[in-house]
Order: sequence, then structure tokens, then C-alpha cells
Amino acid sequence: MWNKSSDAFLECESAPEDAKIILFGAPFDSTTSYRPGSRFGSSAIRRESYGLESYSPYQDRDLTDSAILDIGDLNLPIGDTDKALNTIYAQTVEILKAEKLPFMLGGEHLVTLGAFRAVVKKFPDVGMIHLDAHADLREDYLGVTLSHACVIRRCWEIMDNGHIFQFGIRSGDREEFRWGAEHIQTQKFTLDGWSETLEKWGDKPIYLTVDLDVLDPSVFPGTGTPEPGGVSFDDLRQTVTGICHRAHVVGCDVTELSPSYDPSGVSTAVAGKIVREMLLALEK
Amino acid sequence: MWNKSSDAFLECESAPEDAKIILFGAPFDSTTSYRPGSRFGSSAIRRESYGLESYSPYQDRDLTDSAILDIGDLNLPIGDTDKALNTIYAQTVEILKAEKLPFMLGGEHLVTLGAFRAVVKKFPDVGMIHLDAHADLREDYLGVTLSHACVIRRCWEIMDNGHIFQFGIRSGDREEFRWGAEHIQTQKFTLDGWSETLEKWGDKPIYLTVDLDVLDPSVFPGTGTPEPGGVSFDDLRQTVTGICHRAHVVGCDVTELSPSYDPSGVSTAVAGKIVREMLLALEK
Amino acid sequence: MWNKSSDAFLECESAPEDAKIILFGAPFDSTTSYRPGSRFGSSAIRRESYGLESYSPYQDRDLTDSAILDIGDLNLPIGDTDKALNTIYAQTVEILKAEKLPFMLGGEHLVTLGAFRAVVKKFPDVGMIHLDAHADLREDYLGVTLSHACVIRRCWEIMDNGHIFQFGIRSGDREEFRWGAEHIQTQKFTLDGWSETLEKWGDKPIYLTVDLDVLDPSVFPGTGTPEPGGVSFDDLRQTVTGICHRAHVVGCDVTELSPSYDPSGVSTAVAGKIVREMLLALEK
Amino acid sequence: MWNKSSDAFLECESAPEDAKIILFGAPFDSTTSYRPGSRFGSSAIRRESYGLESYSPYQDRDLTDSAILDIGDLNLPIGDTDKALNTIYAQTVEILKAEKLPFMLGGEHLVTLGAFRAVVKKFPDVGMIHLDAHADLREDYLGVTLSHACVIRRCWEIMDNGHIFQFGIRSGDREEFRWGAEHIQTQKFTLDGWSETLEKWGDKPIYLTVDLDVLDPSVFPGTGTPEPGGVSFDDLRQTVTGICHRAHVVGCDVTELSPSYDPSGVSTAVAGKIVREMLLALEK
Amino acid sequence: MWNKSSDAFLECESAPEDAKIILFGAPFDSTTSYRPGSRFGSSAIRRESYGLESYSPYQDRDLTDSAILDIGDLNLPIGDTDKALNTIYAQTVEILKAEKLPFMLGGEHLVTLGAFRAVVKKFPDVGMIHLDAHADLREDYLGVTLSHACVIRRCWEIMDNGHIFQFGIRSGDREEFRWGAEHIQTQKFTLDGWSETLEKWGDKPIYLTVDLDVLDPSVFPGTGTPEPGGVSFDDLRQTVTGICHRAHVVGCDVTELSPSYDPSGVSTAVAGKIVREMLLALEK
Amino acid sequence: MWNKSSDAFLECESAPEDAKIILFGAPFDSTTSYRPGSRFGSSAIRRESYGLESYSPYQDRDLTDSAILDIGDLNLPIGDTDKALNTIYAQTVEILKAEKLPFMLGGEHLVTLGAFRAVVKKFPDVGMIHLDAHADLREDYLGVTLSHACVIRRCWEIMDNGHIFQFGIRSGDREEFRWGAEHIQTQKFTLDGWSETLEKWGDKPIYLTVDLDVLDPSVFPGTGTPEPGGVSFDDLRQTVTGICHRAHVVGCDVTELSPSYDPSGVSTAVAGKIVREMLLALEK
Repeated sequence: MWNKSSDAFLECESAPEDAKIILFGAPFDSTTSYRPGSRFGSSAIRRESYGLESYSPYQDRDLTDSAILDIGDLNLPIGDTDKALNTIYAQTVEILKAEKLPFMLGGEHLVTLGAFRAVVKKFPDVGMIHLDAHADLREDYLGVTLSHACVIRRCWEIMDNGHIFQFGIRSGDREEFRWGAEHIQTQKFTLDGWSETLEKWGDKPIYLTVDLDVLDPSVFPGTGTPEPGGVSFDDLRQTVTGICHRAHVVGCDVTELSPSYDPSGVSTAVAGKIVREMLLALEK
Repeated sequence: MWNKSSDAFLECESAPEDAKIILFGAPFDSTTSYRPGSRFGSSAIRRESYGLESYSPYQDRDLTDSAILDIGDLNLPIGDTDKALNTIYAQTVEILKAEKLPFMLGGEHLVTLGAFRAVVKKFPDVGMIHLDAHADLREDYLGVTLSHACVIRRCWEIMDNGHIFQFGIRSGDREEFRWGAEHIQTQKFTLDGWSETLEKWGDKPIYLTVDLDVLDPSVFPGTGTPEPGGVSFDDLRQTVTGICHRAHVVGCDVTELSPSYDPSGVSTAVAGKIVREMLLALEK
Repeated sequence: MWNKSSDAFLECESAPEDAKIILFGAPFDSTTSYRPGSRFGSSAIRRESYGLESYSPYQDRDLTDSAILDIGDLNLPIGDTDKALNTIYAQTVEILKAEKLPFMLGGEHLVTLGAFRAVVKKFPDVGMIHLDAHADLREDYLGVTLSHACVIRRCWEIMDNGHIFQFGIRSGDREEFRWGAEHIQTQKFTLDGWSETLEKWGDKPIYLTVDLDVLDPSVFPGTGTPEPGGVSFDDLRQTVTGICHRAHVVGCDVTELSPSYDPSGVSTAVAGKIVREMLLALEK
Repeated sequence: MWNKSSDAFLECESAPEDAKIILFGAPFDSTTSYRPGSRFGSSAIRRESYGLESYSPYQDRDLTDSAILDIGDLNLPIGDTDKALNTIYAQTVEILKAEKLPFMLGGEHLVTLGAFRAVVKKFPDVGMIHLDAHADLREDYLGVTLSHACVIRRCWEIMDNGHIFQFGIRSGDREEFRWGAEHIQTQKFTLDGWSETLEKWGDKPIYLTVDLDVLDPSVFPGTGTPEPGGVSFDDLRQTVTGICHRAHVVGCDVTELSPSYDPSGVSTAVAGKIVREMLLALEK
Repeated sequence: MWNKSSDAFLECESAPEDAKIILFGAPFDSTTSYRPGSRFGSSAIRRESYGLESYSPYQDRDLTDSAILDIGDLNLPIGDTDKALNTIYAQTVEILKAEKLPFMLGGEHLVTLGAFRAVVKKFPDVGMIHLDAHADLREDYLGVTLSHACVIRRCWEIMDNGHIFQFGIRSGDREEFRWGAEHIQTQKFTLDGWSETLEKWGDKPIYLTVDLDVLDPSVFPGTGTPEPGGVSFDDLRQTVTGICHRAHVVGCDVTELSPSYDPSGVSTAVAGKIVREMLLALEK
Repeated sequence: MWNKSSDAFLECESAPEDAKIILFGAPFDSTTSYRPGSRFGSSAIRRESYGLESYSPYQDRDLTDSAILDIGDLNLPIGDTDKALNTIYAQTVEILKAEKLPFMLGGEHLVTLGAFRAVVKKFPDVGMIHLDAHADLREDYLGVTLSHACVIRRCWEIMDNGHIFQFGIRSGDREEFRWGAEHIQTQKFTLDGWSETLEKWGDKPIYLTVDLDVLDPSVFPGTGTPEPGGVSFDDLRQTVTGICHRAHVVGCDVTELSPSYDPSGVSTAVAGKIVREMLLALEK
């Protein structure tokens, strides 16, 4: 079925038949308008996981006990957005068919659209929790509709119910905020209220998409469009742990690490630790 | 009268006759004793404003509605402090004569002296709010009196009333703190009390000078003399927004971004966002 | 007896006979498993102290009033761990014999073992306060027992009483946390409780070892193994000041600055400021 | 007709009606398969031309005497290759219609295709001189036909005569070299023979495309795919000067500067100097 | 027998039974006295081989036709020199027993000693060709005998005949040059004479050790001890190709790439291309 | 008389009374118009000399046999050009009075003027050999006459005879080249002819000033104004060795290393090696 990644994240090397979560990378950044480089995000997370423990003292759990398989990066055609999204879609469909949970590492945020199309197909009533600095609700960006700046708008269009819950949003143009206020639910600046949202949503399926630039740039400088005024590491850690632990997550992704903008390597360490905590919390 | 900058900050491209605020750069760092490079600050803020929105969700206002003109960088003779300060002075005089608000982007902190001389001439009773990590109150530095380390002392000398209100100060020699305690008002470490200060000061004219190293270096590493233990982005954002919104600001500046010490570009993003919030708040 | 360092930290240039504290560097990182470079830590702290004031507004004290001598870096044989530790041991013995306080700048954390051996010999009932992100309690690391990842375990083995008080620990394998829970006292994630610990410990001798990666990587990216979720600068500053001021400190060290991972230079500034505050607080 | 660039290269600020050469930038790198960033090339060349003289001691000519207009960067939709090429095409058509010479600054090498389409339309018998480390002759790259790795193949397809003269080529797959040997003329490793080629070609129109990675990476590290074993600065300078001076050049471009891979800034200085020498030589 | 590397160099993925050459990495730099980091050399060469073609236009050969297996990096205990050298020795013995050619990627130059011990055991009459900037002939370095600065002296001690041929040497202390003149054959500054040496040596077995700092630092800045005045890329390429093609090479290594000292990535590209050319030439 | 530098270059630690050459640093860059940072040049050369041998295989001489004293950096007031030049002048006068040879390490090229004023006073018939990429012959630069861009013109004005011999010059404005052709002797692009110049000049006193940017930026990227097309390391090494060995050098300097523009550290290694070779050749 799948081969394990050549250079798996931490101990994510379960046998394909045993794995409950399938981790894969989507190294694509062709629509990044400002500073490219998130294509190197997923491989950096894997490589630098050498400096990270598989054990979490926060949750007192260890990835060595988990049933996770990292199948590595997809081979995406840089420069052809349609084909790239289709490849991501096909991979996600395959994972979902096997009754496993898809966990995608970006790449730019647009890759979410490929995975989410597959999730919506299987779970038509899925909702989305979206953690991000940017609203990503544009109709188009410089005439391009398949753009990282429009990805949540595109996701909304293919949902039945349009239930999107944004947190941490602190950047966008006036029109995006106006549209968001009418069509979805937006928590500006902070992650406050995620717990109440989960409570109301109950055990219906949810897709969790994390754009790591929701973090303050002091914590996470390694991203294409750093936006000062973000949330702390502990805020994000607790929020994603809580969601993964309590909600019925049917798919998730972590995007927008662009390691070359952070020569200290700290951003990659942050990304890896967030992924570790999510994986441990998903395995309830 | 003025030409707009070749590469204006965000949407600051009003016609000269309509503009209420004139933005200009003072790319000078000849007296920087430790690590030079703030001469590249103003141009970096402009160039990297490409990654910043003109709309602020904090204030729900947009620079596209504003009457601001960015006239670009002055042509300052590196290596000749007197001439550089005179050029800044002349520019500020011209802006004030036209009944517009001068908003200067540094450059090192010494550039404040050039602008402040012009402001004092027009508003002899002006007070100064000074946000900084360093007291800048030395009589001289290595025998040089026109130095970034002495700039507030030099400003004090040309004021009638000596009303200087410092906030965030956490570095200086013993003598500077002693002198400051006798002659001006200093809030150490934090920005606490700015609101009370404004209240007491009333609607008399005020000059606001922001040395960005008042921020903690985790937030703003891109500066010549980083000083750990500083204020957060939100602290600074709220303070400058509050001052610009409520006080009778007759001139202001933002100094000491030195972009080459921050390869991630985050410091430039912070500087640009602070400038945006100030501009929006000044346009009441 | 000793020559002052060629390039002393701040004003630490007392005559050998007058000095109460002897500062020295241990530029060693041969066992660093992940990213080497802490060998350059001590010299960077000295060199960059040019940008730091000798006066502390926190304590209202000035190093110019202090009796401290910086004797520079030891000449340690890179690649020979035993010999390096012996050299550190011999230096510390000599300082203790002269009834002075040894203050060591790392280098990697393993250097603590060399100094601590000397301290234990003179003060058999010494306790240890250990501030760190990592437990450092492994029995061995890849078969190597003299490793930075095992240093606190090695220290424990040579103590009579095993009184080790850890703070800030947020990384380790499951076995380290299990062993720690049985044999020593560990405060996970924060520095909470240091004051109570001091109170209980009374005026018995204490050795303070600070691995600077206890700080959050946003504050201190320049280290070999950055671990997100750490303490703030002010937390650490207040804690080390409190300990140095109130406890009977008979030796201390500050380790794991690796300046090349932080091109902004901020981490070196943080390290220098922590060292300054400790020195001032030790001089009661 | 055209506005001069906000931040023109050297003195390239002729009035549109006087200008004989129109300089413009094509900031596009969406198909870059390995390391993106050439989108920042053209703006870096302009900005860093501050450190360059307008006078050339090689040719004893000065750009202040020239009739050149720099109209700045095109606004290209990152992520939409077709639209980007069409925008470049339209700009080039407009320049050619006005009987001026188009001189394009990349951007990745694929941008050549947009300009060359316009040139071929006006000069159906145009030949091409191609200086590069890479053959760029692939039929497709990871299934994408509009890719930087295929650009010369795409150019060949739209030419009547297929007269392409490659120099400096030292990288490609076996098939590219085989195809090249059959269909075009390739000088491997060096620039030898350009003079003979010019002689044979006579005064028929020629398009000159320079991928700066033809230079050895010691001279020009700032590029996406550095390829050791390249030509020296003087080799390239003499060759492009010779071609621009002696041939009937009807269009040209300089591509693949990716400034962020060269923190020293030397690569940008090299690019700017090559562009200066070409401009001076074109103005015969 | 062996597993292929998780992330093999170019196409070096032959079945173990078919492979004639076994490539492996020795990520060790514990004795590096000046600037560490060569431990990251071998993995960087593999990872960045993505930007390199498997086909060589110099030799008109392709690695896809070769019988080479890359088995990845050894797991070496950082901080324990003896154990590390023993691990390298054991791996080399195993490769030689299987009648295959060991090709080692460093790491620091000391790793050569581990491999060479195994080679000498099987081929007691082996000679050594040593390309390097540094003589590496010290008796000890700061009291350490197992040091990168002594490695060739250590190799000489275990040889029967002492036939060592050095080329490119341009740094050492006076004593090293004196000792070298008496005991081995040294070509200072250049690679001149390698062809004559091969001719005299005939078809007796030879070990080739390449310290990449033999290259001029303009070509190869990414190394711990850059030494200006070195050879060009083409010099080195032709020399190693010639030796690998014509001599009876029974083992070889390429050492001292330290990628973090070269942010442009050019040094890694150089290293990968030298390795490719050697591999192709060895497969005669 | 003088104290040895705290961190002397190589073995330059002779007793003041024995020393024949006095090495000192002039860390000044206040007039640098483009990219500052040469103030860090002299200290970097000293610090990084750790990686350099005191023995030269080129000359078969060792600095351990030499009578040289490095007295460290002058304390120059950044921001006050007149005072800085006066300090340099006074130091040079003192060295010359003691019948020793002054050897200055910059700093920017303007520092030459301070030292040269002292030399001219003692040796009114002194000539100057000037190795540089830039002519430095402007009357003024942006209205400033004491500028690095005017330094050789200023030197010429205080000479009796105006005998200045430039080599390697490849940048300047048209007027500088015109003025140079009339008043001094300029060898463009290369160092050719230095030997003939020496021969004609005979044993009259000569001052040698080396702006390291005469080197090609591939060899020496770490400088404020890199100028492609320069000379090789061996060219420069042979030229300065030849001049120092054969001519009656009465003073010399090496300027314009700006280490922060070269993260690889190679430029500092180049500078140190050039200084070593000059020192060894001066000691005839």
C-alpha cells in the first residue's frame, strides 16, 4: 500500500496495515505571492525531528506507542497548481478509503484545498477549524483564484454548510473581514473560544487546518508572511491539543513553515513540536 | 512642492496639496557606536510594506482612505553629522510651514534632533514622549556630543520647559539615570503611565519619538543595540495608537530599525505595522 | 596567580588578590550530539559585552564597584573529554583554594561536571539548582556516559545527598522523567517554586547551573537544541538574581550559548545580561 | 507611453520618446523546481545599482550619455504561468512596435519565452545566442512543459530556422545533450567560438539570452541551481560586450539572479555590472 | 547485508549483491579544533544531490548505468573518538570482505584513519594519495594524537612502506613541513605531478583521500579551516577523475564539507559534483 | 611605551623595545557611503588568526622569529571624522619617532589619510603605491571632502611630489579617471607593472596602501563595495610580498575588510594571510 518515508518524522514508522494516522508532505509553494520557500517545510520538519524527543511531558505519552506511518513527501509538479491539487486530492482519498486519518504537512496553505476536497467528499457535513494570522478569504489574488490568499474561500464554496471557525485572524483587506463577518465565524487576534466552539459542534466531523503564521513572529519567524501580534507557543499548543483530543477530527494539516527565513532553526523546532503534540492527542 | 516617493509606503500617495501627513526617511547612522546599519531602515520599511495590508483590523481603518504622502528618503551626507541634521531640519521646517505633520523614519536615533529643532521653533511649548530601551541622556559619548547616545539630552537643552516623558528605559550608565531622575520623568522597564501622562499634559503640543529597540529583542532583533527585557508588540502598538489618537501630536518619528541584523525580516514587518497603526491613529 | 583575561567581560578586571569572584570560560562542545558551536559561547559573551552597560537599573548596582576578575578561557583539548574535564576541575580547585567563587561560562553543559567535582570536594554537602529545558538525566547517550545529555546524572552520582532541584524542564525521554521523579526534585515547564526551595535549603552551600536553553527560543535562539515553550527573560532574570542574592552560592555556571545559530546577536546579549545580573547579585 | 521605473537602474531615465532601449523586469519564478527566489532578481539589480558607477572604464562610456528607459517590473501573477508569459509577451510587443529594443531582467529563465514570442513575431528569421550552465532542452519537467528546464526547447519550437547557439553548457540529462547535438549548436563548458558564430551569422537579427548561472558559482553563488565549473566574470563580460557591440541584437535578457542565496551581495553586483556593460555596448 | 540509504545520493541504489562500490557517510567532527560542522557534510551531499544531474557531460557517463549502493550514514558516538573510529573500521572491513570498494563521505578528516586501517589490513602494500590544503602531519595537537591535524601522520605510522603522496599543501607549521620533507612526498600549492606519480606507482593499490579544503575558498567556502590560495574546481575535477580512472583505487574518501559555513549552498554542490565524477571514473 | 594588544595577531607580541614593526587597528567607517561595517575588520583579523599558521610555506619564514608588536585597536570616536584622523595621526607619529614601522589595519580606506599625514611629515619625498578597485580620486563625495571616496586625492594634496602609483583600478566616475590620467600613474584592472615601478623608484621611501577590494569579490566578498573583475589571491600575495621585500617601505596599511558581509569567514582568512605575508616580507 504505502512505503514508509525514507526519513520518517520521529518514530512514525508503523506498518501500513496497523497505522491509524498517515502523515504526508505536500511540498508546494507556487502561488506564494511574497516570499517563497514553504516547499521545504515538510522535509525540514522530518529532518530536524532528530533534535526532538518522541515523549511529551505535557501529555505523558510517547510516539513510540503510537500507530502512525509517515509516507514522506508527494512528488508535486512545481508550477502547475491544478495538477498539484489533484495529486494531493488523490492521496487523501486513498488514505480516507483505508479508514485512516490524513495528516498533511505543507507547503503553502493552498495545499489544504486538495486535501479538503477529499474530506468533504467522504464527510459532506464536515466543519473546519482554521487557525491563521490571515483571513485567506479573497475572491482572487492578482486575478488568480487558486491562491494561498483565497484558500479558505475556496474551501467554503465546496462545503454544504459553510461552517468555518477562524481563530487568530489579524490580517486581511477590508473586504475579507466584511465577507467573513457575513458568512463564517471569525475570532480576531486570539484563539479564545475554541473550547465553546467544540462544545457546540459536538461530535460532528471536523477538519483542522493550522497555518503556523498564527503564531507571533517572535516564536515563528520562519514563514513567508510574518504578521506581528500573534499567539504564543503555549496558546497554540494547548488549543491544537485540546481540539485533537476532544473533537472528531477527520483530517488535518500544518502549513507555511518556510525554514530558510529562520537561520536559527527555531521555527522548524516549533513546527515539529506542534505536530508531535497533535499526533499524540489524536491517538486517544 | 514635493514629489511622492518612488516606492511609497503602502498607499501613502496623496497629492501634496491634500496630504495632512508627510512621511520621509532619514537614512543616517554615522554616530552609531556599536553596530551600524539603521541607514537601511526607512527604505526597508517601504519595500517590505508589500507584505502588509493597508487595512487595520485593530482600528477598522484603511490607509486607502487617508491623506498621507510619502516623499521618500532625504539625501544625507554620510560622515558629516552637522550637515545631515541641517538637512533634516530644513525638510521638517518646510513641512511644518505647509501646516502638515512631519513623520520621520530613521535612521539612528540622533536624527530626532534635526526634526525636533524645527518642531521646537514652531511650537516652543512642545513636550516630548520618548519610548526607548536606552536613556540617551549622556553629556557626550567618547567625546562626541552629537551622538545617538546623547540625543534626548540635546533635545532637552533646546526645550523651554524640559518636559520629556520617557518610557521603557532599561539601559544607561549610572550617571544618566541620576541626571534623568533630576531633570525629566522616566518610567523604567515598562510603558505604564502613558495614559496618565497624556491626561495631565492635555492638548498642548507633543512630539513622539519611538526608538524601536524599546521592544523586546525577541520581537525586534533587527537593531544595533538589542536590550533584553523589553515590551511586547501589543504593548507598543496600544501605546502608540493611544498617543497618536488622543494627544496633540505635532511631529513624530520611528527609528533604529537595522534590517541586516534580522535575516528573517520580522523586524521590518514589526516596524511597518507600528508605522501603519500610528498613521491611521493620527488621522482622526 | 592569575592574569586577567585579554578581553575581560565588562569591568571584571580586579586585581587577583582583591577579587572575590573569578570568571572563566570553558570553550568545549565535543559531546554535543545535535548542533555544535557552544565552544564559541564564552568568548562571544566577553566580546559583545561592549554593547552592554556595567550598571544595572534592576539592582541599582554597577560592576565598576565590584571585585571580580575575568581570567579568560581555559585552553581545552577539543576531542578529549577526560582531559578537558580535568583541566576544568583543576582550575576550579585552584579558585576554591584561594577562597574565591568560581563562575564558569560554557561551552556545552557537560563542563559543569568538571567544576562541580571540585565544588563537591570542598563542600561535600552542596546542593544543586539546575535551570534547563532538558532533564540531562540519561544513563548514557549513544553509549557515551560523559555527554551533555547525562551531565546532571553524573553530578548526582558524586553527591553525598543527591539534592538536585531542577526547574524549567520540558524535554527528555520517558525514562529520564521516571528516574528524576524517584531521585531528585523536578519542576516541569516553569521556574515556580525556586523561592520555597531556597527557604527550605537554608544557608547550606548551593551550586547554581544555568543551561540558557531554559529560556524560550524566541528569547534565546542561539543554542544547540532549542526547545519551544520555555521561560521568559524576566522570569530567568528574577530567578537567578534571587538565588544569587539570597542563597549561599559556592559556585555557578552559565552554559549552552551557541552564537552562530543566532545571526542577530540577541542571544549573546541575553547571556551577557544574565551574567551581569548574577555577578551583581552575588556581590552582596 | 511608459512611466520610468520608480527606482531606475543607474541613469536609465530617458524620456520615453528618446529612449532606444527599454529595460523592464519580469519577477516570476513559479516553475523553479529547486530553490525559488529569482523573482527578487530584477528589483535587487536596480536597488543595488547604487553601489555601481554609471561609467565603464572597460568601454570608456557612460550611461549618463545613453538613451535608455527603465520602466520597472511587470506585475506578474505568481502561480499562473500562462498569464505571466502573456503579460511579458504583450509588453515586449509594445516595445518592439515603438521600434525600441527590449531588455528584460528576470526572474527565472522561463520568462525568456514570453519575450521571445514577441521577437519571433516581428523578426521571423531571428537567431538565438544562449549563455547558460544548463541545456534547458527538456521536452517536459515532471510533466510540466512550461518550465525553466524546457525553455530553450520551447523557443526552438516557435522558430522558423531553429538557429540556436548555446555556450557554456555543462549540465543536463543525457537525452538533452543528445537532442541538442541533433538540432542546435552547443559549445560545452566554455564560451569559445562566439566570435566565429557572430561572423557566420552576419547582420541577421539575434536574440541574446543570458542565464547568469553560466558563471562559476564562486563568482555568482546567488542563483537557484549553482553548477560548479563555469566561466569567469571577464569571460562573460567580454562575450556579452562583444555580442552586443557587433551583432544585430533585437532583444535580450539577463535571468536567474536569486539574491537571497548570496548574503554577501556580490552576485547582485555582478549582475548589475554585466547589465551595465551590455547596455553600453548596445548603444553603438 | 546492507540497506540502501533512506535518501541515497543520486541514483546510487543498486541491489547490495550487484553493487561494486559502497558509499557511506561518517558524520563525525569531535576533534575539529577551529570551526565544527563537518558532521553535517555527508547528509548535505545526499540531500542537495536533488539539484545535480546523474549524467556527466565531462565523461559522457551516467550514474543510472552504475552499480553503486549508498548505505547512508554510520551512527557515530559524538564525543568518543576511539569508538567512532572503530565503527568506521568495522564498516570498511565488512565492505572490503564483500570485495567491494568503500567510498566514505566525511565528516572531518580524522575519519580517514578508521577506513584506512581496514584498507591497510587487506592491502598491506597500499599507497596513499592525499589532496589537502593542510599537511595534517602533526605528532599531536594540543596533546591529542587522534586529531584531524594529525591524521596523515597516524596513517603513515600504520603503513609498511610509508608511501604517501601529498598534493596542494599550503598550510602547516614549520615542523610539519620539515618532517614531511624527510618522510613522504609533498607537492606544495598545486596538484602538479599526480600523473607522473601514478605512472611510477603502477598498478599497486592506492587509497585516495580528498580533503575538500584543497580547493580555493572562493570555490569552496563551506569548510572549517578555509585556506586561501588553493586549486580550482577544474584542477581538482580533472585530478580525481584521472586518479580514479587510471589507478588501482581500493578505497577513497571525500571529507571536510561543513555546509553551515556556506549559506549559498555552493560548497555542497561542489562536493556532490566531485563525488559524482569520482564514482563515474571508478566504474571503468 | 605601548602595551601589547589583548588579543594579538598571531605571534606579534615582541617587547616594545625590540619590535621593529608596530601593528595597530583603526576601527572607523563613518564615511562609508554604501555598506558600513569595516570598523569590525581589524578585530576580526586578530580573532580569526587562530585558524592561521604563523609559518609561511611561500617564504619559508615564521612570525615566531619576528620582532613585531600588535598594540591593538585605537579608540576612535565614531561620528567625528576630524578627531578620528587626528588620533590615527598621533599614533603614527609616535611610532615613527621611535624609529619603527607603522602597519595599520582598517577600517575604511579614509584611515590611510591619518597615517599618511604622519609619514609625509617625516619622509617628505615619500611615494605611494595604491592597490584598489576604486580610484578614490573624487574632489568630494556628496559634499564631503574627508570621505573614503576621496582619500587618495587628499593624500596627493599633501605630497610634495605627487608620486602615486595605482594598480588594479576598475571603478570610478569619468572625472576621476580623467584627473588620474593627468596627475598620477594608474594601472587599470591588473597589478601589472609593479615590479618596473619599484625599479624606477629605487630606494626612496614608499608608503603601501592596500584596499582589499582590489581582489575579485569571489575571493573577497566581505567588503562594503564589491567590484567584480578583480585580481586573484596569488596576484595580490605575490605583489605585496614583492613590494614589502624589495622596496623601502616606511609605512603601510590594509583596509576595507567588512566581515559581516561574508558569513563564511573566508574574507577574514584572506585578509589575515595577506597581512602575515606582508609582515614576513617586511622583516628582511
